[in-house]
Amino acid sequence: MKCELISVGTEILLGDILNTDVQYLSREMAALGIDVMYTEVVGDNRDRLTETLRRALSRSDIVILSGGLGPTKDDLTKEVCCETMGVPLREDARALTWIEEYFRRRGTPMAEINRKQALVPAGGTVFYNSRGTAPGCAIEKDGKCVILLPGPPRELNPMFEEGVRPFLAEKYASGAIVSRSVRTFGIGESAMATRVSDLLDRANPTVAPYAKSGEALLRVTAKADTQQQAAQMCDDVVEEIRSRLGALVYGVDTPGLEHTAVELLKKSGKKLGLAESCTAGMIAKRITEVPGASEVFECGIVSYSNEVKMKLLGVSAQTLAEQGAVCADVARQMAKGALKVSGADIAVSVTGIAGPDPSEGGKPAGLSYLALTDGENTFVRRVTTGHAGPGSREYNRYVSSSNALDMVRLYLQGELNQIGNL
Amino acid sequence: MKCELISVGTEILLGDILNTDVQYLSREMAALGIDVMYTEVVGDNRDRLTETLRRALSRSDIVILSGGLGPTKDDLTKEVCCETMGVPLREDARALTWIEEYFRRRGTPMAEINRKQALVPAGGTVFYNSRGTAPGCAIEKDGKCVILLPGPPRELNPMFEEGVRPFLAEKYASGAIVSRSVRTFGIGESAMATRVSDLLDRANPTVAPYAKSGEALLRVTAKADTQQQAAQMCDDVVEEIRSRLGALVYGVDTPGLEHTAVELLKKSGKKLGLAESCTAGMIAKRITEVPGASEVFECGIVSYSNEVKMKLLGVSAQTLAEQGAVCADVARQMAKGALKVSGADIAVSVTGIAGPDPSEGGKPAGLSYLALTDGENTFVRRVTTGHAGPGSREYNRYVSSSNALDMVRLYLQGELNQIGNL
Repeated sequence: MKCELISVGTEILLGDILNTDVQYLSREMAALGIDVMYTEVVGDNRDRLTETLRRALSRSDIVILSGGLGPTKDDLTKEVCCETMGVPLREDARALTWIEEYFRRRGTPMAEINRKQALVPAGGTVFYNSRGTAPGCAIEKDGKCVILLPGPPRELNPMFEEGVRPFLAEKYASGAIVSRSVRTFGIGESAMATRVSDLLDRANPTVAPYAKSGEALLRVTAKADTQQQAAQMCDDVVEEIRSRLGALVYGVDTPGLEHTAVELLKKSGKKLGLAESCTAGMIAKRITEVPGASEVFECGIVSYSNEVKMKLLGVSAQTLAEQGAVCADVARQMAKGALKVSGADIAVSVTGIAGPDPSEGGKPAGLSYLALTDGENTFVRRVTTGHAGPGSREYNRYVSSSNALDMVRLYLQGELNQIGNL
Repeated sequence: MKCELISVGTEILLGDILNTDVQYLSREMAALGIDVMYTEVVGDNRDRLTETLRRALSRSDIVILSGGLGPTKDDLTKEVCCETMGVPLREDARALTWIEEYFRRRGTPMAEINRKQALVPAGGTVFYNSRGTAPGCAIEKDGKCVILLPGPPRELNPMFEEGVRPFLAEKYASGAIVSRSVRTFGIGESAMATRVSDLLDRANPTVAPYAKSGEALLRVTAKADTQQQAAQMCDDVVEEIRSRLGALVYGVDTPGLEHTAVELLKKSGKKLGLAESCTAGMIAKRITEVPGASEVFECGIVSYSNEVKMKLLGVSAQTLAEQGAVCADVARQMAKGALKVSGADIAVSVTGIAGPDPSEGGKPAGLSYLALTDGENTFVRRVTTGHAGPGSREYNRYVSSSNALDMVRLYLQGELNQIGNL
């Protein structure tokens, strides 16, 4: 079963929009065992969209189009698909009620142009939109299946989960592909690949190394007749990888370090306090992206200036004067201050040079000091990313926040002494 | 001049990676007046990559490939391009030195496999990599230009700016396309489109409405012989849009609300304090993404629990008991507490239900109260996004943080009374 993804929108070709839909849909198709062979982007143009859809129908079994279902004049996807496939449009009463209800809930009047969104292909399967106004739909004709989905991810994703995935699983899923992402922290992609280089030659499961936002990960993918067989094949390889990489592995299929940290905090019944300087709220933000984080996190201090470090966290004026704000001693004092202010069981601090420029004192962008304290023991880590200049700021802040989360998970695993401390 | 973008990587087809490169390159090509007609993704597979490149060379003048320049076995882009175009590879001494230096700076040993990255197409233009190990390059042959770039955005983006953009501008840029994004806050896409519907029919400049993360924006794009003419054509339309939308417009080509807020804070010489509950650091993170934010921001309190709201911000236990944490009075008290603790000139607070589930007391996900105080006057805004359930949490938090930044910019523009206050 071959699948092709077409994203519709001139805004994507112009670079106005980051195309997250194609990532989401690719991942979902892989999980259903449906091969995505092509992904393309086409503008809001009747002729080019028609031509692209025709080519897709000539070579793929399933074509998924996302975008161009909005109420405005340049939203053409539904009309073009119906014309190309020879299917008329009709107004769907339930979709219209849904759209009217959507505006009622938000307390804003429905614009007349939104009525167009209640038109759906006659005889198709309608997917109602629980997050927005445009319904999605599936058209099946001549052995081909075309699926239309709204562009905004917060509409597309739940629509896929609630309607499209069950639809595809019943009619089109075949065999099974299972993938596992083995996520590591504290080792580069090349060094990691070297440690598992023999595994990278395997045909099934395949093992592929990737680098991503200061982390290295290994993607293990197995194909088999059943989901269970494929999963078992993956798990055997994952175990082998774990035995080679040890504590560098922080999770398998974990969305990120913040999830591992929150999970371990919950298990241990401990609460975390934070003092952030260069990351300025990023660690707190990442932790609270995990639902239920309130069980383990109550208080963070963003101390962006020396004054706040002294006043709220009790950092010594003398240390700041002698060593500057970016040093191991300030990190230690910030963590101790955060532990006291938050009343938590452990506290983590970060102070560093986010960039893009070095500090006035000449400390390089990408240098940061982190500390973790439980009141008795205090651990300090020094991080240098080596990245400066344009584009480095976001990366450096992210890597600093990842190191803070990494310290939390290693501490709770009883392994904080082992890796990378001062 | 027709351009085609090919992203190389099975990890993209499997959905492991969010393809930000294609957005970046599309935007840059548009700015150079080079039309991007196709964008495609192809896996790390010799045959499919060769076939895709051949088709691209048959229909496009410029083909830009990103990804697959890494050191591992499945990185094939350079070899496949050289084979397809009939150009040999040779080791580049400067690239090798660059790679060795990269590892020296980071204090880690160079893996032997990284040496492969110093191979470049003979006779091509080499783009050195100031952020990573893989050099990029341009191969010009038979009237076609193929450009190879590393996949990671923090390598690709600076390489494009430092090497590729000047290269293309000199050889291939023709005419000029200028685009402006008119960014608004406080109005939906449909309502905005209705107010400017006559402008949406224009052929040059074109005006197109988009919705993005709780904001609506208008993209104005003009084509002309010179950059200056195109810019003037855009600016005339932007002025017309401003006159219709008034204070709803927060910026033109502004990266986001945080930039407008920081800029206005700098201009007014005022400092901002923060008290965040449901957004938990997101406002602080967004503000400090703007380089130089330390001039205007020193202190943020993430008060995720009632205890911290009372202890650090002085919120009354009685208010919390009677009305719960998510109400106008708690927002007011949090803002006043943050003003005091931070010593800033104005302070903003947020308390709300991020979701995905409603609060225990039955308050809906997506409800939040925000307050801004300058010590004398306190303004409160109530926000309901109408979004609950899976995927709503991140959206609700983002919209809350945007509302906080919007209150700051409207306050500093002297227009906070006008829009959406309780």
